[in-house]
Amino acid sequence: MKFFDFFKSKKPGSASVAKERLQIIVAHERRPASTPDFLPQLQSDILEVVRKYIQISEEQVKLSVDKQGDFEVLELNISLADPGK
Amino acid sequence: MKFFDFFKSKKPGSASVAKERLQIIVAHERRPASTPDFLPQLQSDILEVVRKYIQISEEQVKLSVDKQGDFEVLELNISLADPGK
Repeated sequence: MKFFDFFKSKKPGSASVAKERLQIIVAHERRPASTPDFLPQLQSDILEVVRKYIQISEEQVKLSVDKQGDFEVLELNISLADPGK
Repeated sequence: MKFFDFFKSKKPGSASVAKERLQIIVAHERRPASTPDFLPQLQSDILEVVRKYIQISEEQVKLSVDKQGDFEVLELNISLADPGK
């Protein structure tokens, strides 16, 4: 499955650090003159719902937005830190 | 970028049907005895926030959950239908 390749391509290093992570990818395939671009708001809403389940600070979240052709892709990478910190 | 390959691998067919789609992928890399599995609830919360921006019915949403090793992957595929329907 291609999607797993994507994850696996990330170096398995820092393997000794047993950190959890959560990755959320939102891809919107838009047509011209279609629905408005709601990804920026959706992004903060998703972060808000994630916070219902796990405590995350701003520093734990890495955001990226990419546009390619009809696709707009939002990627949220959240490393779940030691709750003791 | 590998992620885009994932999308492109889907047949570009039904090209004549200019449908929009939204794909949300949540991947949780868990360690044993780590945070509880909140993906099922997160999934319905995410659908709820998406509904703030676009009208979607149950039939427009395709869900799949996959587990592989430490990864639990939730995939939401939403085809955005003609609002006139």
